[in-house]
Amino acid sequence: MNVITFLSDFGMKSGYVSQMKGVANTIMPQVRCIDITHEIPCHDIHAGAFVLMNAAAYFPTGTVHVAVVDPGVGTKRRGIVVLTQTQIFVGPDNGLLIPAARSLGTFRVYEITNHHYQGKSVSHTFHGRDIFAPVAAHILRGISFDSIGSQIHDFVDFRFPLSVRNTDDTIDAQVLFVDDFGNIITNIEQDTMGDLFASGRDITIYIGKQKRSLKFVDTYGSLNPGVLLCTFGSSGLLEISINQGNAAESLHVTRDDDLKIAVVYRALNDTDKDLDVS
Amino acid sequence: MNVITFLSDFGMKSGYVSQMKGVANTIMPQVRCIDITHEIPCHDIHAGAFVLMNAAAYFPTGTVHVAVVDPGVGTKRRGIVVLTQTQIFVGPDNGLLIPAARSLGTFRVYEITNHHYQGKSVSHTFHGRDIFAPVAAHILRGISFDSIGSQIHDFVDFRFPLSVRNTDDTIDAQVLFVDDFGNIITNIEQDTMGDLFASGRDITIYIGKQKRSLKFVDTYGSLNPGVLLCTFGSSGLLEISINQGNAAESLHVTRDDDLKIAVVYRALNDTDKDLDVS
Amino acid sequence: MNVITFLSDFGMKSGYVSQMKGVANTIMPQVRCIDITHEIPCHDIHAGAFVLMNAAAYFPTGTVHVAVVDPGVGTKRRGIVVLTQTQIFVGPDNGLLIPAARSLGTFRVYEITNHHYQGKSVSHTFHGRDIFAPVAAHILRGISFDSIGSQIHDFVDFRFPLSVRNTDDTIDAQVLFVDDFGNIITNIEQDTMGDLFASGRDITIYIGKQKRSLKFVDTYGSLNPGVLLCTFGSSGLLEISINQGNAAESLHVTRDDDLKIAVVYRALNDTDKDLDVS
Repeated sequence: MNVITFLSDFGMKSGYVSQMKGVANTIMPQVRCIDITHEIPCHDIHAGAFVLMNAAAYFPTGTVHVAVVDPGVGTKRRGIVVLTQTQIFVGPDNGLLIPAARSLGTFRVYEITNHHYQGKSVSHTFHGRDIFAPVAAHILRGISFDSIGSQIHDFVDFRFPLSVRNTDDTIDAQVLFVDDFGNIITNIEQDTMGDLFASGRDITIYIGKQKRSLKFVDTYGSLNPGVLLCTFGSSGLLEISINQGNAAESLHVTRDDDLKIAVVYRALNDTDKDLDVS
Repeated sequence: MNVITFLSDFGMKSGYVSQMKGVANTIMPQVRCIDITHEIPCHDIHAGAFVLMNAAAYFPTGTVHVAVVDPGVGTKRRGIVVLTQTQIFVGPDNGLLIPAARSLGTFRVYEITNHHYQGKSVSHTFHGRDIFAPVAAHILRGISFDSIGSQIHDFVDFRFPLSVRNTDDTIDAQVLFVDDFGNIITNIEQDTMGDLFASGRDITIYIGKQKRSLKFVDTYGSLNPGVLLCTFGSSGLLEISINQGNAAESLHVTRDDDLKIAVVYRALNDTDKDLDVS
Repeated sequence: MNVITFLSDFGMKSGYVSQMKGVANTIMPQVRCIDITHEIPCHDIHAGAFVLMNAAAYFPTGTVHVAVVDPGVGTKRRGIVVLTQTQIFVGPDNGLLIPAARSLGTFRVYEITNHHYQGKSVSHTFHGRDIFAPVAAHILRGISFDSIGSQIHDFVDFRFPLSVRNTDDTIDAQVLFVDDFGNIITNIEQDTMGDLFASGRDITIYIGKQKRSLKFVDTYGSLNPGVLLCTFGSSGLLEISINQGNAAESLHVTRDDDLKIAVVYRALNDTDKDLDVS
């Protein structure tokens, strides 16, 4: 394998991303570099963890992912390598890598301590270039994980909040991400809550003081352009969307907003009562 | 050949593009992925068709292009493979692929029906990842086109509007695209109308109620910075531009605006009469 | 070697970048293309030169860099190849390539005159696609530099301004770049002025009529989120930053702003006098 992916909050303007790729190419000349994204909002570890978790499963066995959303760079926060059964993650010990690793099964975490695999000169402000990219390239060259550093168990863990299904078929949920289309991606999983949702079912959502009625449908284009809807999106999570529109802008929703979602089994015009959304 | 290009309206924030590349790499480990763009305005099939058409000709024989501007994903719209003499296009049957294919000569269209070449689990909302990228990677591995599905003839066609040359040396034209520099790219083709334009010739353009006089020149830098001009750009189309400025912002022009362009054979100060721009 | 990097002010929307990559792939099928950035502000040669200079050193020997910030395209400005001991640069003769080349040691400049290595049809407006990318790909294929054109000595030179250390331990400096985090990157070099800055030292900066007191620290996370600071960043230059904030927005600083920076050896509360910042 010779694929390294890169995810960061660097943006593209400064060329920082290319510096990481240059370093990786210098150590491992046949590496192929694939960007996951560099548009994670600056310092937003949880957004980075979400995008990484959703992308990793689609890469082949042996892929090494370098992820750098790293407000603690140069402080005492550790650098880590996370080894799963199929793929490897390299980045800061701040929770960024863990949801992706966990989504692939069991994993082990190693602290990066061996200076031999780092750049000759390590800056205080750019470990993506000076530590993580070099370590990733050396991993592709076949070094043993034990030679990178010792396994640790006190890594910084992070789990996305789970939605909660109430006895009255309402769900307390959170917004995990808003994509470039304005789709509002929630933490309602198709795997565990899919039985509540059937095509055409009426849904009521409560966001702050807003109450909106919409239908669950199979896909965005099931309803007319401009119509608010919800569907299970490509991440296996319930999305609130507008066909060919921007739901997040329309509903003024941002990540971390709390939602209450009621699955309504009656006709839409019978559902016009308020739920307790304290 | 091992090149797949990707064009979409996904943006980069969500990592969706990388999911397509991961899938392609899993099926075809030596694939090289090249982005055409992922900044097509959301759901804007015609903008996507324009950018794809302009880029495709520069890629080598055997390139497979995956293009996904797909508001109808998950509905009854079909997925297609378009085979030209030199290159292959994979994407939705909504017109997106056709101008690029036609620009390369004759072409055949196949509907994608063979589930064997799709991902194991096909979402309703992301066929770029679950159908088009896998099919593209299998094509690079050498599968026969007949095994993908049957040839169809009732695909959704799309042609860009042609500009019309009037008997009085005026041209009725449309804006096809505005690039990141603010160059206004029209549908006036150098191949068919180049004889009207000679370096230094005076031109009058009418956009809505605006009337502007400018010169046709060889390139942006032929006139001073800040000067409005027109030239045949790198797409072989007449562009209205400002040297080191943004013509689209300055003239408040957006795509789909109609233009009337008059080629004036007299000195500029003799041309100050109104054309009929009804 | 088979790496070509690309830097431009094209943005990604139009697909122009992909046209250059398609051309390079057609000439040199095993080329690997790496983007440095395409978000250089339109026509901003100096910003392009800065980003290229900072990235080039991290690429392996034999890398060919195609850089296109080219307001003079199609005019009499020449196209050049710049050959250093380790890497090659291809682009317009407008100063863009020179700081990067000089940062790698001695260099020679060749004018591109051999039409054999250019595209069949050279547009007046896109030499990145029609001249520079083809020449870069031919260089990777091993052509001799003498066959490209003649060595020239009257190329357009460019050097970034140097900061000036005054006898009173103040520094007259300029802003060279603002990155996506809002870090204000100055022309104060760690190599030559690092002795003035020690961790925890008090600094006073004057920007226009603003006077701000801050500390020099080892890295962004050394102080609390939201605190203004300065540190030597990953380019070896003094950066004015806010931990997890945007210093450029907060201070209303843009590139080319002049700064006066005073290194203060006393306690912060003793430094409240005005410097002469005429």
